Amino acid sequence: MSVRGLSLNFATVRPQFGFAAAVDACLAQGITAIAPWRDQVEAIGLHEAASIVKMNGLEVTGLCRGGMFPATDNAGLAAAIDDNRRAIDEAAALGADCLVMVVGGLPGTSKDLSAARGLIADGLAAVLPHARACRMPLAIEPLHPMYAADRACVNTLEQALDLCDSLGAGVGVAIDVYHTWWDPKIRAQIARAGRDGRILAHHICDWLVPTRDLLLDRGMMGDGVIDLKQLRGDIEQAGFRGHQEVEIFSAENWWKRPGEEVIATCIERFRTVC
Amino acid sequence: MSVRGLSLNFATVRPQFGFAAAVDACLAQGITAIAPWRDQVEAIGLHEAASIVKMNGLEVTGLCRGGMFPATDNAGLAAAIDDNRRAIDEAAALGADCLVMVVGGLPGTSKDLSAARGLIADGLAAVLPHARACRMPLAIEPLHPMYAADRACVNTLEQALDLCDSLGAGVGVAIDVYHTWWDPKIRAQIARAGRDGRILAHHICDWLVPTRDLLLDRGMMGDGVIDLKQLRGDIEQAGFRGHQEVEIFSAENWWKRPGEEVIATCIERFRTVC
Repeated sequence: MSVRGLSLNFATVRPQFGFAAAVDACLAQGITAIAPWRDQVEAIGLHEAASIVKMNGLEVTGLCRGGMFPATDNAGLAAAIDDNRRAIDEAAALGADCLVMVVGGLPGTSKDLSAARGLIADGLAAVLPHARACRMPLAIEPLHPMYAADRACVNTLEQALDLCDSLGAGVGVAIDVYHTWWDPKIRAQIARAGRDGRILAHHICDWLVPTRDLLLDRGMMGDGVIDLKQLRGDIEQAGFRGHQEVEIFSAENWWKRPGEEVIATCIERFRTVC
Repeated sequence: MSVRGLSLNFATVRPQFGFAAAVDACLAQGITAIAPWRDQVEAIGLHEAASIVKMNGLEVTGLCRGGMFPATDNAGLAAAIDDNRRAIDEAAALGADCLVMVVGGLPGTSKDLSAARGLIADGLAAVLPHARACRMPLAIEPLHPMYAADRACVNTLEQALDLCDSLGAGVGVAIDVYHTWWDPKIRAQIARAGRDGRILAHHICDWLVPTRDLLLDRGMMGDGVIDLKQLRGDIEQAGFRGHQEVEIFSAENWWKRPGEEVIATCIERFRTVC
């Protein structure tokens, strides 16, 4: 039986499966949409990964990830731009719907968020012509404010959409409910993103109470406090017709269980609470 | 030597000192402004605490805390309102500059943030007449989005100021840089808060990288990534002339050190990095 509308981000089964095994496990349970990470693609080889995608008629809802633009010197900035151009090529080779951009935080010992945000805007502008030439949309992912220092200092959907407005065509947003559910402006900004045709991806998991680790304690849908149905409704109302992509980092729980069980639970929860 | 402009929130030395010992330790190092918590006041008795404040000519920059309005039934809502009226009385008895409001999160098993935010607005409106009668300003403290579920679902300064606008006179904001430093709109909203005369308190500490616990791993000023000088400048530029109040929850570091050392470090850092 096919599972329509659900994509598995391979971070969810990172310790259990490499790329090929993750694909097999998805297909065995009817999932035909995936979102791999660059290191997982690199481990098997880009050509082989692309062959597996094509042979099985998989949809790649996104490649994770580009971004990480801020650096302390020009060489670092240039290296980040080169790396992002390669990421665009890889996403194109996989036929991905978008390249997910985790834009980066404060470089080195800097405390200057405004400067970092400027470097991010510059970096995106620098790689955008290549993305457009490859017809590969860049999906800016606003990350939860608790990652502002070390992962991404684009922290609200409003901020991401303002950035899109300044950049023009070829960029949009990945709306991950884990990062955005708390935002008092989220519903209005989802509607805005839809009006502007900027919604490129919709990531789901859940926010646990308590959350025991800032990075690796995401919850399975239904185990936390996020009103997933409402947010899904808002995103679909805004015109997005793509998959919901399950992305769960869970060092102490889901990463310790058999991958088949994790995938089966994702499907069950997707059908009941999302 | 007196330390001008610095207030010690007694959470910073919670395990080391009760109310009276914390006052003594502050005075010994020249700090004459404090911010106690209600349980610390209750432990010594409100009358005794107020006597100590008066006898030593202390400024109480805030009493922590009122709020926690959302509840699952009418009895719970009524109890929260009663408790907030008592908190206002206690703050008035201490001659505090404001009652800090940590407004509360999702009640029970609710996932409805909008409803919780409505209960918060209603609760504030219900206690505001008593606060006005007591001439006790209510300082709504936007908390970091990582506390939206369980502590406060007022999570940005913009949201807090919108709430102030709807409530009218007698309310303002406590701007804690730990909760707000990441916000791309923080500087504009600080300016707005100043224009509207809403800034009632300025709390400081630092955001550590990595942060090992969502609640109890706040950093000493200078040990993290927050641009404290810039935010202080913005807040002073906005017209606030009150103290910077140091509030550090640090289970594994500062709470394990001698209280005198903690206070000495607060003073040193206040003078060099804030």
